[in-house]
Amino acid sequence: MELENPPGTDRYQAGLDCLQRVDGPQGLAVVESLARSFPDFARYLVEFPFGDIYARHQLGLREREIATVAALTALGTAVPQLKVHVHAALHVGCDPAEIVEAVMQMAVYAGFPAALNGLAVVREVFAAQGIALPLA
Amino acid sequence: MELENPPGTDRYQAGLDCLQRVDGPQGLAVVESLARSFPDFARYLVEFPFGDIYARHQLGLREREIATVAALTALGTAVPQLKVHVHAALHVGCDPAEIVEAVMQMAVYAGFPAALNGLAVVREVFAAQGIALPLA
Amino acid sequence: MELENPPGTDRYQAGLDCLQRVDGPQGLAVVESLARSFPDFARYLVEFPFGDIYARHQLGLREREIATVAALTALGTAVPQLKVHVHAALHVGCDPAEIVEAVMQMAVYAGFPAALNGLAVVREVFAAQGIALPLA
Amino acid sequence: MELENPPGTDRYQAGLDCLQRVDGPQGLAVVESLARSFPDFARYLVEFPFGDIYARHQLGLREREIATVAALTALGTAVPQLKVHVHAALHVGCDPAEIVEAVMQMAVYAGFPAALNGLAVVREVFAAQGIALPLA
Amino acid sequence: MELENPPGTDRYQAGLDCLQRVDGPQGLAVVESLARSFPDFARYLVEFPFGDIYARHQLGLREREIATVAALTALGTAVPQLKVHVHAALHVGCDPAEIVEAVMQMAVYAGFPAALNGLAVVREVFAAQGIALPLA
Amino acid sequence: MELENPPGTDRYQAGLDCLQRVDGPQGLAVVESLARSFPDFARYLVEFPFGDIYARHQLGLREREIATVAALTALGTAVPQLKVHVHAALHVGCDPAEIVEAVMQMAVYAGFPAALNGLAVVREVFAAQGIALPLA
Repeated sequence: MELENPPGTDRYQAGLDCLQRVDGPQGLAVVESLARSFPDFARYLVEFPFGDIYARHQLGLREREIATVAALTALGTAVPQLKVHVHAALHVGCDPAEIVEAVMQMAVYAGFPAALNGLAVVREVFAAQGIALPLA
Repeated sequence: MELENPPGTDRYQAGLDCLQRVDGPQGLAVVESLARSFPDFARYLVEFPFGDIYARHQLGLREREIATVAALTALGTAVPQLKVHVHAALHVGCDPAEIVEAVMQMAVYAGFPAALNGLAVVREVFAAQGIALPLA
Repeated sequence: MELENPPGTDRYQAGLDCLQRVDGPQGLAVVESLARSFPDFARYLVEFPFGDIYARHQLGLREREIATVAALTALGTAVPQLKVHVHAALHVGCDPAEIVEAVMQMAVYAGFPAALNGLAVVREVFAAQGIALPLA
Repeated sequence: MELENPPGTDRYQAGLDCLQRVDGPQGLAVVESLARSFPDFARYLVEFPFGDIYARHQLGLREREIATVAALTALGTAVPQLKVHVHAALHVGCDPAEIVEAVMQMAVYAGFPAALNGLAVVREVFAAQGIALPLA
Repeated sequence: MELENPPGTDRYQAGLDCLQRVDGPQGLAVVESLARSFPDFARYLVEFPFGDIYARHQLGLREREIATVAALTALGTAVPQLKVHVHAALHVGCDPAEIVEAVMQMAVYAGFPAALNGLAVVREVFAAQGIALPLA
Repeated sequence: MELENPPGTDRYQAGLDCLQRVDGPQGLAVVESLARSFPDFARYLVEFPFGDIYARHQLGLREREIATVAALTALGTAVPQLKVHVHAALHVGCDPAEIVEAVMQMAVYAGFPAALNGLAVVREVFAAQGIALPLA
């Protein structure tokens, strides 16, 4: 991965490592694409969310991804990012059923449209990953 | 149309049981107070969120509460409910540090104000529970 | 009512008349209070929402207030305005049960916290109006 | 705790009947499609919003749809669901002008972008229903 | 530009003039297209936002556009309008770097997804305007 | 100011310096209070928003504060933070009338309730700063 302005700091490297643990090559590809247009922001995206927050050990990566999938579903304004994090949730070992469940639960807290639009994202990511629906 | 799991009958009782597991007597008190003014809505609150959703076994109660704390923090429009669910997260066995972490993580997805206002709720609930801050 | 910059146009007067039909003296008091600090904005508030929109005849005032109560409940960021419009809904002849119902319905579209916080506003306004809860 | 109206049993059937009254075959098709991937959630969607809420008699279906169209327009995060409910509003007998008006009114409560995006949905649904714009 | 109901008032004309200063022919085209389906709302869009608000002299047009680009990025529910205002920000003389910066800053106040989706809009508008990214 | 874990990095110090330029002693007091309960988050708050974003030179501090006041008004979920930034806007040299104007403008993009609630915050901060309303 070649970013235009590799900062070379520990924090940046820790962020890249963490991003890779969270989402694999797909996460790095998102950052790489962003960096072609907005290199500074791509660096912040690696450093703060991943180098600072996700790298902390007080919460497991599975729980972090459940939290993020739930929050992005509830907000309803972040479809591309929800896609990334449904994928990431699978990547860190969440059961497909756990992901569906966290999204469904958002019907309670953010309404049925939020949950329905979240499930549409789940369906799309699961299809790309070869996970058949309905779950057994 | 054939549904996989046709519903049973004691949805309300299942909801009350689940609410008690999730939040103890404090959860029941919320419903009781609501029922004095809006009895039908109190019943729906027991039946759908708790009798239908939380009662499902595909996601653990700790994960459900992490998801809810994260989502309510991100939405920023549900302070009374966030209080209930920070309490509930402790009640189902989340570590105080896990709750703080899930709220902090929302700075990434919903901005610093959302996380700051969520931490203010955490501080209030932790104080009432005798949990000293900063965490060791 | 003495506003600092009474525009004297038909639109402004039509707005004041409409505001009075919608919310009675209480609506005028809100505008008057606002005008002491922000007279231009008070004028816009009379002219656009009331002089332009509410004054139109394509939707009845009862339906307008149901729509507004529902929307403000769903948004969850407008408690003072929701108070005004629960009062206004009563003032234009909505049945108390219709108002409760529109707020409850928002559990479906914006989640239970939105509906619960909306019902708390309803309870407060109904108490001030001497409407006993639960409704018969 | 004594509830005023202890629930019956045929909630799912009542929900299907109500959904059909609200939106005709198009509503059933939405549920059927959802049920192919997420059967449990499809059941909840029938049971709670339609079997519990819309089936209540305290608010007319026309008013319910005005409320929902207004709220979804204001939220701005539920375009597919707004489409369904603009269609449903027509189906339960709302005048096209009433629907346009409720959406326009949201400029006051949620801003011009919310109203503009709501009108774009209205235009699409009206075109599919053969309703010419501008309205006479 | 032929609108169905040209109001001919000073306010309407002031709004059109202001809209043209803010966004050039592209802004007029948006209104014209809207007026074909919703002529009354097109008139309000000219009169209140542009004839009333943008026409005021207490804040410069560059600052107004920075404010609008920031707010629409933060809300995350107004992509078509954000496009218009990124274009308008360039039109009133904002430096491309200032626009990128205002959008990036929203990561702090509304989260990284809001900023990322805002930057995607910036990229699209800049491409159409021949502004190369990354900025030098 | 005594923080529990002074990182001693350039980024942290740059953030503190920038925060002081933006909001004076009042900004430092907010961070200090936060650090007593959540020291890590207080550090992130200094480092990312101020050390990374506000410290950049592509946008002036006055424009940054106009953008933030507008966005927080539009979001409607960040009253304590809006207070801080109305104060900060004055501190970096925005004219009181510019601040009022940016908040009023949000009526267009986020609705009248958002603007009204923003103006209530403006009134409170202006009163504490001895700025009389209405502005001359």
